[in-house]
Amino acid sequence: MATGSLQTTYDNDPNDVVVPDVVVERLPLYVRVLAGLVESGTEMVSSEQLGDQLHMTPAQIRKDLSYFGRFGKQGRGYNVAALVSQLKEILGLDRSWNACIVGMGRLGRAIASYPGFAPEGFNIVAAFDTDQNLIGTDVDNLPVRSLSHIKQAVEEDEISIGIVAVPASAAQSVIDSLVDAGISAILNYAPVTAHAPDHVKIKNIDPVMSLQAMTYYLKT
Amino acid sequence: MATGSLQTTYDNDPNDVVVPDVVVERLPLYVRVLAGLVESGTEMVSSEQLGDQLHMTPAQIRKDLSYFGRFGKQGRGYNVAALVSQLKEILGLDRSWNACIVGMGRLGRAIASYPGFAPEGFNIVAAFDTDQNLIGTDVDNLPVRSLSHIKQAVEEDEISIGIVAVPASAAQSVIDSLVDAGISAILNYAPVTAHAPDHVKIKNIDPVMSLQAMTYYLKT
Repeated sequence: MATGSLQTTYDNDPNDVVVPDVVVERLPLYVRVLAGLVESGTEMVSSEQLGDQLHMTPAQIRKDLSYFGRFGKQGRGYNVAALVSQLKEILGLDRSWNACIVGMGRLGRAIASYPGFAPEGFNIVAAFDTDQNLIGTDVDNLPVRSLSHIKQAVEEDEISIGIVAVPASAAQSVIDSLVDAGISAILNYAPVTAHAPDHVKIKNIDPVMSLQAMTYYLKT
Repeated sequence: MATGSLQTTYDNDPNDVVVPDVVVERLPLYVRVLAGLVESGTEMVSSEQLGDQLHMTPAQIRKDLSYFGRFGKQGRGYNVAALVSQLKEILGLDRSWNACIVGMGRLGRAIASYPGFAPEGFNIVAAFDTDQNLIGTDVDNLPVRSLSHIKQAVEEDEISIGIVAVPASAAQSVIDSLVDAGISAILNYAPVTAHAPDHVKIKNIDPVMSLQAMTYYLKT
């Protein structure tokens, strides 16, 4: 059961342990590293080896995983295949998720053609815009619909995730519409600091801001 | 002068104050909020008002800015235009920067067509690949060159930033080549935890991992 923006409780744990958001944030990284180990045929891995790959201490690894139960065996390490499968289940990655894109300008079209989503179980099933010239056309095999139909589409197409690709000036109002339509996970590509109720998660994808934080070190 | 990966000293400060990386990371956000205030015609802003927009306390704002000198006047707040211009200079955003993309598959082409870079002074001036079928062709008006020419190109085209858009399996070797060519700022779109010397900054853009950290909260 989610309990606001800072932490959450893990349902399957009998002690109702609160899992800090920062631990949840790291789990996809664990899954990635473990999936790499599966591919390379590794059967067991120690917290030391995991720590090396994740740039963390073995103690941090053990503490993170302890939130979700007992995975490792003393002195034997973790069974790679079992751990990755359990972590995927914990993260909800043992199923696929439907997403929609709002804003089908250059940015939205670039996101629609991004090759990384589908193989990981994220299906972009709908596209919205407010531009009458775009509505009714197909972009990358996605029919572009009017933003006014979003609530209906979210229900009909079982959409869980909203991807925001509108200009900064329109972003907050689009995010409000997504929240109103029942969306509680938003991937925001618009260059704004957006606001949403506590139960809504927003992740910002902002390559320009990432670049701007690096030029500080380049300029000297 | 950069002093490793955790902090840096600010050259213009006579006291040689060390600026934590986390403060540098926040500066682009300040610039964005302040640029919005300039557009709306706001002349002065208090640390309280800035804090509201940035979801920070006024004390944090004042402490962050104090690393770079005295900007505000007691009881009067900050001059918006002057502050944004000084922060841009501090971040090296008062000039443009040349970047190259390595990997011109679907992902590289999507990045090349991303509309957000050029208006902020980031120019993609070169593209590289190892695929003989791509080398010599033009993608989005960028001639695709052989990765073996990267060192020469970085010098000739004054490239400061490398954007990595190759598959995960090739990413570390491409990052090594970029570092070898003298690049010290890397925007990595490949889904890997990459390694580089301390003087090299790597920022990861990973929308899939952002989605994977949100599904945890969706699945209940």
